Amino acid sequence: MQASASAFVQHIAAQLQARGWMLATAESCTGGLVAAACTDLAGSSAWFERGFVTYSNTAKTELLGVDAVLIETHGAVSEPVARAMAAGALARSAAQLSVAITGIAGPTGGSADKPVGTVWFSWGARVGADTPLLLRAERLLLPGDRAAVRAAATEHALRGLLATLAGLT
Amino acid sequence: MQASASAFVQHIAAQLQARGWMLATAESCTGGLVAAACTDLAGSSAWFERGFVTYSNTAKTELLGVDAVLIETHGAVSEPVARAMAAGALARSAAQLSVAITGIAGPTGGSADKPVGTVWFSWGARVGADTPLLLRAERLLLPGDRAAVRAAATEHALRGLLATLAGLT
Repeated sequence: MQASASAFVQHIAAQLQARGWMLATAESCTGGLVAAACTDLAGSSAWFERGFVTYSNTAKTELLGVDAVLIETHGAVSEPVARAMAAGALARSAAQLSVAITGIAGPTGGSADKPVGTVWFSWGARVGADTPLLLRAERLLLPGDRAAVRAAATEHALRGLLATLAGLT
Repeated sequence: MQASASAFVQHIAAQLQARGWMLATAESCTGGLVAAACTDLAGSSAWFERGFVTYSNTAKTELLGVDAVLIETHGAVSEPVARAMAAGALARSAAQLSVAITGIAGPTGGSADKPVGTVWFSWGARVGADTPLLLRAERLLLPGDRAAVRAAATEHALRGLLATLAGLT
C-alpha cells in the first residue's frame, strides 16, 4: 500500500475511535482496495464494520438498494449513483460513516462523455438518528493506466473521509 | 500486487469466462485483498460479480446469512463459519463460484488454540440448479506479520479457486 494511504487510514482510525463510530465502504472501480487499505491497519475491526464490493449493477441494487432506474438513467458512473451507494452503505450497515466509489478504471469502457479515469465519489455521515444524512459528492478525472486510476481513487476516497470527519461539528 | 496472484487471476478469469460463470468473494481477515486482486485485471466485470467484506460478525450474519449461533459456538475463525460464508456468497449473489477467508492476521487476537496466522478457507461451486453445492474447506497456519499473513492468505484463496475449477467435471 502507498505510504500516503496508510497515513490517511491511521488518522481516520483515530478519529472514528474517538467518536465511537464505524465505517462502511461501497466500491465499484476500486474493487476492494479501499477496504483493503483500511483493514491493513492492525485493530481495524474496532472501527471498520463492512465493505461492499458492488462490481455488477445487480450488486449495487441488491446490496446497497441503489434504484435500478437511477443506474439506467444516469449510468453506474454518475453522481446520483455514487450518492445512492454512500447512502445505501449507511442504511445497510451499523456504520456512521461511509464512502462510495464508482468510476471507469479502463482501459476500455470510456466514452466522450465519461472518459477512462472518470470517477465519482460520495461520502456519507449519519450524525444522529434524528438528523438528516450528510452526503457529499465529487467527480475527478484521474490520469494514468488502470492501476494508477485505482490507486489514486483509493487515496482520494480516504482523503475525502478525513475531510468529511473534519467538517463535522 | 504479487506477480503470482496476478497469474492466478488470469487463469481464473479464463476458466470462468469459458464456463460463462461469475465469482463472488467473502472476506474477513483479507479485508478486500482478494476482490482487489481479481478486479486488478482489466475486463474483470465479465466474471467478477460482487465481493463481501464481512469484517464484523454482524456483517457475516446479515450479508452472508451465517448463523450467529455458529459464530458463537465455533468462533468466527472456524471451518463451519468459513463454509457458511462460501455458501452464503453463492446464495446471496449471481455467482457460480465463491471463496471465503476468515482468519487471525494479528498482531493481536491469537490464542493457544488459534494462534496468529490461523486462516480458514472455503471454496464453493454451484454446478447446476439441481445439484448440491460443492464446498471444500482448508486450514492453514501462515507465518509472518499481519501484511505477510494477509498476502499469503490472498494468494492461497486464489490458488484454491483454480484447484476447485480444476476438480470440476
